[in-house]
Parts: sequence; structure tokens; C-alpha cells
Amino acid sequence: MTEHFYTQLDFTTPQGRPLIACNMVMSLDGKVTAGGRLEPGSIGSTFDLHTMHMIRSHFDAVLSGGNTVRQHPFYLGVPTELERIRLERGLAFQPLSIVLTGSGRVDAQTPLFTQAPRPPIIITSRAGAASLPGELKAKAEVEILEEAAPANIAALLYAKHGVRRLLVEGGPSVNYQFMQARLLDELFITLAPKLIGLRTDFTLAMGDDLLPQPEQAELLSIHQHGQELFLRYRFQWK
Amino acid sequence: MTEHFYTQLDFTTPQGRPLIACNMVMSLDGKVTAGGRLEPGSIGSTFDLHTMHMIRSHFDAVLSGGNTVRQHPFYLGVPTELERIRLERGLAFQPLSIVLTGSGRVDAQTPLFTQAPRPPIIITSRAGAASLPGELKAKAEVEILEEAAPANIAALLYAKHGVRRLLVEGGPSVNYQFMQARLLDELFITLAPKLIGLRTDFTLAMGDDLLPQPEQAELLSIHQHGQELFLRYRFQWK
Repeated sequence: MTEHFYTQLDFTTPQGRPLIACNMVMSLDGKVTAGGRLEPGSIGSTFDLHTMHMIRSHFDAVLSGGNTVRQHPFYLGVPTELERIRLERGLAFQPLSIVLTGSGRVDAQTPLFTQAPRPPIIITSRAGAASLPGELKAKAEVEILEEAAPANIAALLYAKHGVRRLLVEGGPSVNYQFMQARLLDELFITLAPKLIGLRTDFTLAMGDDLLPQPEQAELLSIHQHGQELFLRYRFQWK
Repeated sequence: MTEHFYTQLDFTTPQGRPLIACNMVMSLDGKVTAGGRLEPGSIGSTFDLHTMHMIRSHFDAVLSGGNTVRQHPFYLGVPTELERIRLERGLAFQPLSIVLTGSGRVDAQTPLFTQAPRPPIIITSRAGAASLPGELKAKAEVEILEEAAPANIAALLYAKHGVRRLLVEGGPSVNYQFMQARLLDELFITLAPKLIGLRTDFTLAMGDDLLPQPEQAELLSIHQHGQELFLRYRFQWK
């Protein structure tokens, strides 16, 4: 097998905060869920899943929202065969898994916590922290942010956890928040040759207002594998 | 200026019905409207508008739903400079404009009818026909289909109006119906480097159920112009 096109990736890291990227797989009609399901494989191929891991292999931390984690409660890591490549890049053997949950509704008995190679970080409010299952405190690190704005999350992860590259993997509301805060530097999109059509399915970014437009949105690279398209965009915000 | 990449397009026309394609412009987060607006230019560039015209130049007829037409009541044609190329291809100088409206709510005073180079065709129900403004009958051709299923529409246009290539341009519900009926042969997508994010905005195909998947979905071509991506897919249905 030839080298994956994302084995080598150069990033321009901003000053004083992490580089922040998002990776999602989308159907031809713009959906990121299929019948409400967010799991890997419902829209993308096995190769897309491999690509998701390859992208993760460049990041210090991978963040998802509580809804996403409740649907697919697995550690946001890489397969063991990619651990060596991470170490060679000077990264920890696995990315940190970060869960963003206002409510604190997370299940300590799920693989995300029971099979975690590193203790996940839970970012929540004071009220959310009070709702967390007690047993979680031994399995995860809890960070309380009264205002969980993307800028505060980025600052916390940068200063306290040494995160220089942060990958956001949804859901749509979390993606939206990072775009609205003008903090999303890159967007990886897999365009899968699927049709979903269901009007209740989710799109890549969903919120209450029209998003601001990046000053520049540059299509950095295009790769095709089978009938899937792998796109990488870089944003510059005012 | 070099020749547009869609100046030459080969189509595989099915037996006994028109080839049916759809063309839409979509944001990076999967939306086809921006703040509820469907007008050309709200997501795509001037070049994308030109591309839309170039795609239309290959088709006998262009169909839109009533909601779309009410928002943007213009003839679904080509600029006069593309008329010659159509004639050289053996097509009429302008594509037929077709409006699909169950309710018959169309405004005869809009440019779609007052500045039409050819009389548009209105496909409606018997009740819809009764609601049409009386003055419209001099300006448009009204076709009554009690069951306006895509197969019936395609059969009518093929047999009575000689339509061999039909282009569907939305809205999301009309696109969905042609996909659900397994009648969509091709999909042209412009992926524009925009972020919309508004949860109420529309996606490319919207209906009540998950769509069937094509047996094959082939990415026929990829063209980049600026930061926009122009994709062409071909579907095979069981």
C-alpha cells in the first residue's frame, strides 16, 4: 500500500493558542448523520475511517460534544499501529480525548472511560460537574469552565494541557461554535458518494445564526480515493 | 479565456425517458440556502453562475419547484451568447422552463413569464390549475398531472415535449423526489468555500425518509476554479 496522502501534513500554528481543525464526513446532499446516526461508517467508507485516524495522528487532542460521545462512546484515539508515527512526530502515543458537556451527562461505564489509553478530559460547568457520576473522577480529569466559549477552551487546553493542535470532531453544534468564534483554522471534509435526504438529519455546522465568513477560505488539497473525495481547507479570519 | 470545462459534456441517455440531472451549489457545511435565500450568488460565485448557464446549455428543459420559483421568478435559461452553442448542438435556442407547483401559486407578473423567451410549462394538479391566474394561460402552457410523480413528469416531458435531457434545479424537496424515484442520473455539485451554519437553512435534498442508495455513484469529474470545486457524479440505480 502506498503512503496515505495525509501521512505528511504541515500546519501553520498560531501564536499563543492551539491550531484548531475540524474533520467531518458529509454526504452529497450535505448531511453528516444518516437516520440520526453519527457513528463512523454510516456515511464514510473503511478508508475514510482510516483517514480519520491518520488526521488524528497529527493532533495533541481530539474534542467532541456530549451528544456525539453519548452516541458513540469510544476514545477518540488512533489504532496502536499509528502510535509509533505519533511518537516520531514528538507527540504523545495517543491524542487526549476531550468531551465537552454542559450537562455532565456522561456514562462512566462506556469504552471511552473503561478502555481509555489516557484519562479523558471532561470540560463542563460547575452544575455539570456536580452531575458527573462519582466513579468518573478516578477515570477522567474534570475541568470546570463557567463559560465554555471556544476561546476559553482553547486557552485552557493550551496553557494547562500543552495542546498545540486541537481536532474538533463534532457534533454540528460544537463545530458551529468554533466557526462562530472565528477560531477554526482548518476544515477536513470527506465528501462521500451517499444520498441521505432525511430532513431531520444533521449538517456539519448548526446554530442559531448565519456564520461569519472567513476572510480567506483556501482549498489546500484534493484527494480522491474510490468515489470519495478528501478535501482540506484553511481559513483566515478577520 | 480558455474554454469552460463543461463546454463539452457527454451524456448516456436512457431508453424511453429523459436523462435527468440535478445541479446545485452547496456550502462547506452542506447548505444550499443562506439565511433562507435561494437566489443565485448567495453561496456561489459569478463563475458558478456562469457554470450553471453552461450546464443548462446542454439540456432541453430546466425544472424547478414552485417555492424556488416564487423566491427567484426568472426564466431558467441561458444568456443569449450561449444560444448559438445550443443551436450547434441541435437544441432549441433556449431550454424550456418548467415549474412544478401543486398549489398553482405562481405570479404571472414576474420576469419568468413577462420576459420568457419561450412559454414556460407549468405542471400542476387539477386544483392547482384552477388557482392559476387567468392571464397566465396566454403566457404559459399548463399541464395537469393528477399524480405529479417524477416518473409521470419525465414521461410527459419526453412524449409530449421532446425532452431528452432534463435538468432539475431544486428546491430540496423536488431534488429529493427525483432521487427517491431512482430517476436521477447525474448530480452536478458546486462546493463553495462558504460557511452558513444556520440550522434552518436547506440542504440539497430534503424529505421524510432516508433515500435509497444508488447501486453505483461514480465521481465523473473534478474541476477547481478559485476555491470552488465543481463535481459531477453519475448514478446507477437498481
